[in-house]
Order: sequence, then structure tokens, then C-alpha cells
Amino acid sequence: MSTKLTEKQKKLIRDFCEKIYSQMNRGLPPQITMPSRSTSNILYDPTLKQYILGDLRVKRTLTNVRNLRPFTQLTWLARFSHELLATGKTSTLRDAYYSAQAYEMSFKDQSESDNIITDLETILGIAREDFNIFPEERSAVFGDVTIEYTVPRAKGRRLNLTTHPDGLLIGPAIATSKLIKTTADKIIAIEKGGLFTRFIEENVDKKHNAILVLMGGQAPRTTRSFIRRLNEEMMLPVYILCDGDPWGMHIAMVVISGSANAAHLRGLNTPDAKWIGVTATDILQYKLPSDPLDQTDLKRLDELKKDPRYKGERWQKEIDVFLKHKRKSELEAFARYGLTYIVDEYLPKKLKEATTTS
Amino acid sequence: MSTKLTEKQKKLIRDFCEKIYSQMNRGLPPQITMPSRSTSNILYDPTLKQYILGDLRVKRTLTNVRNLRPFTQLTWLARFSHELLATGKTSTLRDAYYSAQAYEMSFKDQSESDNIITDLETILGIAREDFNIFPEERSAVFGDVTIEYTVPRAKGRRLNLTTHPDGLLIGPAIATSKLIKTTADKIIAIEKGGLFTRFIEENVDKKHNAILVLMGGQAPRTTRSFIRRLNEEMMLPVYILCDGDPWGMHIAMVVISGSANAAHLRGLNTPDAKWIGVTATDILQYKLPSDPLDQTDLKRLDELKKDPRYKGERWQKEIDVFLKHKRKSELEAFARYGLTYIVDEYLPKKLKEATTTS
Repeated sequence: MSTKLTEKQKKLIRDFCEKIYSQMNRGLPPQITMPSRSTSNILYDPTLKQYILGDLRVKRTLTNVRNLRPFTQLTWLARFSHELLATGKTSTLRDAYYSAQAYEMSFKDQSESDNIITDLETILGIAREDFNIFPEERSAVFGDVTIEYTVPRAKGRRLNLTTHPDGLLIGPAIATSKLIKTTADKIIAIEKGGLFTRFIEENVDKKHNAILVLMGGQAPRTTRSFIRRLNEEMMLPVYILCDGDPWGMHIAMVVISGSANAAHLRGLNTPDAKWIGVTATDILQYKLPSDPLDQTDLKRLDELKKDPRYKGERWQKEIDVFLKHKRKSELEAFARYGLTYIVDEYLPKKLKEATTTS
Repeated sequence: MSTKLTEKQKKLIRDFCEKIYSQMNRGLPPQITMPSRSTSNILYDPTLKQYILGDLRVKRTLTNVRNLRPFTQLTWLARFSHELLATGKTSTLRDAYYSAQAYEMSFKDQSESDNIITDLETILGIAREDFNIFPEERSAVFGDVTIEYTVPRAKGRRLNLTTHPDGLLIGPAIATSKLIKTTADKIIAIEKGGLFTRFIEENVDKKHNAILVLMGGQAPRTTRSFIRRLNEEMMLPVYILCDGDPWGMHIAMVVISGSANAAHLRGLNTPDAKWIGVTATDILQYKLPSDPLDQTDLKRLDELKKDPRYKGERWQKEIDVFLKHKRKSELEAFARYGLTYIVDEYLPKKLKEATTTS
């Protein structure tokens, strides 16, 4: 986010803290209400195309001694996050857990501190990345976009994201940058590093006017939010390429419709992104080398079949094809037709399909 | 590698192929001899500080019908690799496996094709990365080094590796680049992404004149070879920071002394690199938050205790401290003293220690 945005996030935290402070000032026991994140309150919103929290709310008041611990942890975290924003530093979930110990703030284990971080997200309505708690970096980007950094190290400096042909890591610096300009007209998000490298080597960015994003498996939230920003702010359609199995398909789905875990957040998913492959149908149509689906794969397909995110006709059909033929194929399987077949033949065909059907 | 190097690698492959061709031309059944990679032939060389292959050699001749399959696979792979080098394309292990199918070259599974790739490494005496078969990228670099690309996409272009403050992926483009100049006087290799980001944020590269390398767990071979090149060609000492447990310690060791798997190769390890922490002694001395070592950790320590790479006094002592106190600590545990303690206090102290003792 830009400095202006940082100010907005800091204000959200201060508002939260001032509310508590003013309650105490008026001699009232401080209390917080926030949307419940219990499973029964997680609903799928077909319009937003993502999970959202329902109307159930939880109240935490300090008149109940059981709330003392999570309440204190929460206000400590608010303070910690405000400091991160104010000093332009970032932290990881793990760092936050250990940092607490400097304040003799006891978290039993990291899952307890992670949970409080999610509480703060829910209360503020913004993702932890927005208060500078970032995951490990493992995804990357390559393509003709010019960004302008807002991080202290490079504030105001601009960079074109074709600068390094192995790709640029997507970390705090990219996540908080301003998107300045692009000549690209689409985004291609790719599950795996091998193919990302192949696409750069084969100039897919130039040939298809595309920004290439390496998701590195399930895309980290920073990356999902970066894809959404490219989609919204630069109005670029998003196409997703993953392995042809239930796990690959679901990586695409999480980019499109988010996860139940993030039901309390907005802005992480890209509802009009399109899964272009490898579909179950592709495996048959392209006669791809394939492996049998195992029990875990089949069980996962049964779950996805009932998942509200998969309600659409195309998804149901693809799940059925998987279930019928019981085969899976990796992206690399196209190498069976030569290393550049996926770039020269498959990709153009699937991009065309995706733009004509919708 | 530079273009000149590519020519050298191509020649190695051609020489190998011509030898076979000339045998056939003279009416002889083609045969290959190469160092054996069986466990009994893997020896530790204390001078080189790495595992090497002994004098045992295996012979594969086509008079034995059992050799027909691996022999054919091997010559196909040589052809495939030569084509990669000639066209400036790269491939992954997985791609190579599937590509074979285009030639109706049957590999039972990927482990069979991986094994043939290792055979070719052994015969040519160079790593698969040198014939353009690369692993997935997940490590990165940041620091004041100027490189010059040799990959077709960016041939002759120079880049300073401080350009992107999230870090630049180490892939084929960096692996094959020329190292032009640097103002740095050391390399700090870091196990984890969170700390890598922290170090960039806190200007460790400037404060300590360092090039920062993110290993991303066990460093991929491309990264180990890149570290070695920085060490040799730019004469920079290397310092390694990992989690304080047997696994972290061993990540450092593999950078220093390589792995038994790569006994047939040279140039991947950096014998004079130094493990600066987190040592078992550090855990006690810095009173770090720690967790108990579990059974797997303890078993691993027993193995390492007998490992020839750990023969040195300092290694043995640290293993003993681990075994005695039975605690482990992660790098993030320093956050207990504030987010920048590791940068402001721990790192300078350990760097000083490492340069005064040796």
C-alpha cells in the first residue's frame, strides 16, 4: 500500500484502541464485538463469489475473567502492528509470536498468536499484510508493469518488472508498491516454477502481452491480493494454469473465490479470474501422459463436488470427468510433445477459448 | 555460465557422443566406463572438504542386453541436453522425464530418468545445471553485485542486484550470468525468507557490506554453486545463518561440504564458508526461547556425530551441547528481544567472532 494507505491502516488501529481507552476512561469495562468466525457463521456469497461471515457476532468483555487473556493479547498485537506501520518494518507470524515474549505477553504457542492476529484482521476488516505481517516469500512476477516502491529502502523509485529474467520475488516491497503503468493486457498465473521459467524463456509475456505470476503452489495471500490489484487497478483479465488434478484445480479456485479461512476479509480473491487448465477434459483431449487418481484425490473431488464455490456447470462437469476417468496430469506432461508445445499450441488455444466462452 | 562456458559444455557432450559413434564406426560394441556411485565408492576427502567418488568404476557395454535400456536412455539424454544448450532453453528434471516420451524413450518413472541424468553428470563431470536442467527456483539474492546476463532474453544487459528490495530469484538467468563487480566484502546466506526480508529492511547489506542470499531451506544446487562463484570469483567470505537445530546446522554443512549425492561433482560447495549460527551454544548464551529436541532430532544428531564432515572440534562440541541440553531454537526466536536485535546485536557479534577465530 502507499503511504496514504498506511495512514488509513494506522487510523483503523488507533480507532480500535481509542474505543477501548474511552470505555475505560468512562469507568466502563472495555468490550469488543466482532463477527463470529465459527463454521456456522461462514457462508458462501454467490454474488461476491467468495465466503463471507454471517450476522453472528461475538462479544468479549473484561467483566468475564476468561476474556482477560485474549483481550490483552489483542491490544498488545494492535500496538505491535501500529509500531510496524509507523516504523515501516514488517514481521512474520512467527516473529509476532516471539516478539510478544519481549513484553512478557504469553502465547501458549504460535497457533494462539496466529488466532489473535486473525481476530485483529476481523475487527479491522483488513488482512494482516495490511498491518505489515507478511508470509514467507515464494512467489514471483515477471512482465511489463512499472511499479513505484513505497518501502523506505526504495521509496519513490520505479522499476519495470521485466528487469530480471528469473523473476522478482513478491514480498512487502511489491505488495506495497503503486502500480504505475503496463502495456500488458492480461495476467497469466502459474502454479509451478519450472513452467514460469519456461514461459519467460519463450517470451510468453511478449507474445501474449501478459504479466506472468508464479504462485508457487497455493498462492500466498500477498500474491492473491497482488493479482487482484493488477486485475482491478489495471483492468487486466486473469488466467490460471495449474496441474490437472483436484489440488491444482483448487489452487485456481482459491485465487477466484478465496478460502473459508479468509471469510472475514475482502480484496484477496479475483472473482472473474479464469481457470484455463489443465482441466480433466484437457487430459483426454491432449492425450497427456497421466497417472491414476489415488484415494486422497478421489476423496478431495467428492468434497469439492459439494463445495458451493464449485456450483457452476463447468466446474461440475470437470469434476465429473475427473471422477469418471480417474486420471491426473501435471503441467510438465505437455513436454511429451516437445518443450515448447505448451507455449506454442496449448496456451494460445486455451486463451482463445477462455475469451470466447465466459 | 557465459557463452564460452556453454561451448565448453556442448563440447563435453559431443566428445562423449563421438566416442560412442567412433566405436560403432569401427564395428565395436559401444561401451562406457564411469566412476561408480555405489555407497562403497563414496569417500570423504578432508582436503577438498567434500565427498568424492573413489577408484571403483562401472563399465556398460552393449554386448550385455541388460545395458541396452540405460545406454539408449543416456545417449538420448545427451542429445536432449545438447539441444537445450544449443537453443539456450532450460528444462527441469520433470520436463526431461516427459520429453523423453516424445521420442518414445521409455522411462519407467521419474526416478529412472533422474538416475540417468546423474549418470550423465558423472560421465561429463559437470552438474545438470551446466547442461541446462534446473531445479524449481525458490532462493533469492539481494546485494550490491553487478551481473551481466548471458541468457538470450537479456544477453549483455547488466543488473545490480539491489534493484528489487524483495530479492531477485536465483534461476537460470543468474546462474549463467557473469559476475562483473561488487562493493561487498562478504556474503551472508540465510535459511529463511522472513529473516532475509528483515535483513533487507534493516539495511544489513549496507551496514555490513554484504550480499544477502536466501537459501529457502536446504539450498538448491544452483544457489550453492552461485555462492561458490561469489566466494571464488569475487573472493568474498561466506557466513551462514540457519535455525538452531540439527537440520539448520546441516543446511550450513551442505553449503560448506556438499552432499554424498553430489560426490561425483565439484564446484558446488564452499569449503571455507562459515556456520555462524544459530549454534547450540547460542541458544544457552542468548537465553533464546526454545523447544525440546524430539526423537527425530536426536537420532539425526547421532548420525551427524559420526559423519566425517562433522569431524572438526567445533562441530563435535556443538553437537554435544545439543545432545546435552536437548533444546532447539529458530532464527525468529531472537524477536523475543525485539525485531532488530538479531541485526543490531547478534549478527555483528557473530561476524566478529567468525573473523577472529578460524
